[in-house]
Amino acid sequence: MKRKNLMTPGPSPVPSFLREALAKEIIHHRTDEFRSILADVHQGLQNLLFTKNPVVVLSASGTGAMEAAVSNLFSKGDKVVAISGGKFGQRWTEIANNFSLDVIEFKINWGNAPEPKKLEKVLNENQNVKAVLTTLCETSTATVYDTESIAKIAKSAGAISVVDAISGLGQDKLLTDQWEVDVVVSGSQKGLMLPPGLSFLSISDKAKELLEKSDLPKYYFDLKKAISKHETNDTPYTPAVTLVVALAAALDAINKEGVKARWEKFEKLAKAAQSAAKALGLTILSSRPSASATAIKMPENIKSSQVVKILRDKYGLSIAGGQAQLKDKIIRIAHMGWINAQDLIACFSLLEAVLKEVGHQFKTGSSLMRLEEVIYG
Amino acid sequence: MKRKNLMTPGPSPVPSFLREALAKEIIHHRTDEFRSILADVHQGLQNLLFTKNPVVVLSASGTGAMEAAVSNLFSKGDKVVAISGGKFGQRWTEIANNFSLDVIEFKINWGNAPEPKKLEKVLNENQNVKAVLTTLCETSTATVYDTESIAKIAKSAGAISVVDAISGLGQDKLLTDQWEVDVVVSGSQKGLMLPPGLSFLSISDKAKELLEKSDLPKYYFDLKKAISKHETNDTPYTPAVTLVVALAAALDAINKEGVKARWEKFEKLAKAAQSAAKALGLTILSSRPSASATAIKMPENIKSSQVVKILRDKYGLSIAGGQAQLKDKIIRIAHMGWINAQDLIACFSLLEAVLKEVGHQFKTGSSLMRLEEVIYG
Repeated sequence: MKRKNLMTPGPSPVPSFLREALAKEIIHHRTDEFRSILADVHQGLQNLLFTKNPVVVLSASGTGAMEAAVSNLFSKGDKVVAISGGKFGQRWTEIANNFSLDVIEFKINWGNAPEPKKLEKVLNENQNVKAVLTTLCETSTATVYDTESIAKIAKSAGAISVVDAISGLGQDKLLTDQWEVDVVVSGSQKGLMLPPGLSFLSISDKAKELLEKSDLPKYYFDLKKAISKHETNDTPYTPAVTLVVALAAALDAINKEGVKARWEKFEKLAKAAQSAAKALGLTILSSRPSASATAIKMPENIKSSQVVKILRDKYGLSIAGGQAQLKDKIIRIAHMGWINAQDLIACFSLLEAVLKEVGHQFKTGSSLMRLEEVIYG
Repeated sequence: MKRKNLMTPGPSPVPSFLREALAKEIIHHRTDEFRSILADVHQGLQNLLFTKNPVVVLSASGTGAMEAAVSNLFSKGDKVVAISGGKFGQRWTEIANNFSLDVIEFKINWGNAPEPKKLEKVLNENQNVKAVLTTLCETSTATVYDTESIAKIAKSAGAISVVDAISGLGQDKLLTDQWEVDVVVSGSQKGLMLPPGLSFLSISDKAKELLEKSDLPKYYFDLKKAISKHETNDTPYTPAVTLVVALAAALDAINKEGVKARWEKFEKLAKAAQSAAKALGLTILSSRPSASATAIKMPENIKSSQVVKILRDKYGLSIAGGQAQLKDKIIRIAHMGWINAQDLIACFSLLEAVLKEVGHQFKTGSSLMRLEEVIYG
């Protein structure tokens, strides 16, 4: 009978109106009915991404769309800069390496964001860089990167910008066309409030030119085919129909509330979470915290995996610990998609209970007081 | 208020008990709860495929798993024989070409099945063939191939057999281990009664050895990684959680009814459909009709697209027409997954109404009489 709550940075909770959409009777994908739904999805994604570029829907989780970007935009030996400041930046490097690109890994400390000046230097020192592969919100450190500056620097160097916005989209500000971002990759299971299984990719005219030159093998993720099918609101292969139907409902709800209004809401929740953590004598990992999730360092004597475990086993609340080099060092609390202020208040209340249990000292209720101050003003 | 019925060869209808499973609250995929569900799925797929080989689950539709087979088992320039007797056999050729294999396309007339003797000849004439890429049920012609003989011939030639069982699995007989089939590929949206979005791949020990040698680029579909995660009931990347949860329920239901009992049921429905078509003065396209779907030739003066359109627009029943060279020549009626005898009887009743409307002459009710004779004995 334990009630469960999900505040991990993906999957994030799926509201009942979308779970009902997922349970609808299945329809065939080669029909006007489905094409009309896919047309709404295409338009809704353009609104969410602030772009006029086509946004294609792929039936795969986010990593599939990251691979699609690499295998469709580049050729063997192409030089790319991959910004690597966490697990998902590393993934760009891994994919690009697997596809035999010449990868310049621009490493930054986990928890930091790339400094534009330093990126500029890397691009000045290396000629013929085809692209900068970067991340909107690096989920493993809950850090938002200055995507506007990164895209500008890439453009000045004659490179395209390819942004993994899987966890950030919907919470962290992203103005695709205004910032001249060439390719944005995202997925269904974070800000879009859906289960995993769909990913998206927006493609600028400049990126489209690269598709023509690419010599890397692909089939399922062939973006030229996907773009040509996009024009008639179709897909090259059988799409994940139910997820697409639910996505139309999710985009409708998000666009009705307003994407910019939602950015403000999540920015406020993020500020509140940061402030609440400090009230407990804890520090924030990131030098540039994301609006999508908050990474909080645990005191030296407390293993974060223990905190995560007690929260889940005793109270039914799932948050995330740290990955790789941050294992046992941080906890990560998501505020994305369907998660709201009540969830955050309940989360910090349970966190206080668990921190007390593991021996951390602080003033009872102090984090909740800070949350209320920031959220209600 | 029009009731709709779906008898296309994928997506096939999703029963309410599975739509309810799809609507369950989402759970996190890196938990014991999910791993326990995935363990059931792995076991259930092994039962369904009659194999002890690992069956990995990929979050992509069937074409993704076909690509995974090609990009993981082979290296550039490897020689493969692709049996091409319809749209899905052609897909093997296309994928293998895109990945720079040396493809010997073994072409057969659409509607025919490959003759084992001729395949043997092709393999004798070509040395060092690494694999035979084939299809259990070629959906575009509703033809079932003699997979047992094909696998045996491949084995004798030192090649592996790779079988696309996307539409056939669950209806057309397939004894993976007994027939020594090396790789079986399938998907969620046909015999498994689920929406599209998941695919599966079983891998024999001999196929596993090829994974070690493959030099083709891959990341999202990396099968070595997928097999290593399979051992701990995990996945390399975020899986389509809700589809996996529903798949566990689908496999449980199928295995309880009994896979072999279901083969018999669908074989009987197929025989009934063939017989019913003949009663209407029509002929069956295939020389070796599948248990999963029936392809019926339309008389010269009747375009199948018109029949399909009237059935859908006037009566809410979706069946399929012909693809590519069979466009306007055939209709295809699925009997797979959740589809049963009542559906088939209703389908032929509506088909009689439409055929009458477009001017085809036959004795009213004659197809229904034949259906009853075959189904109830």
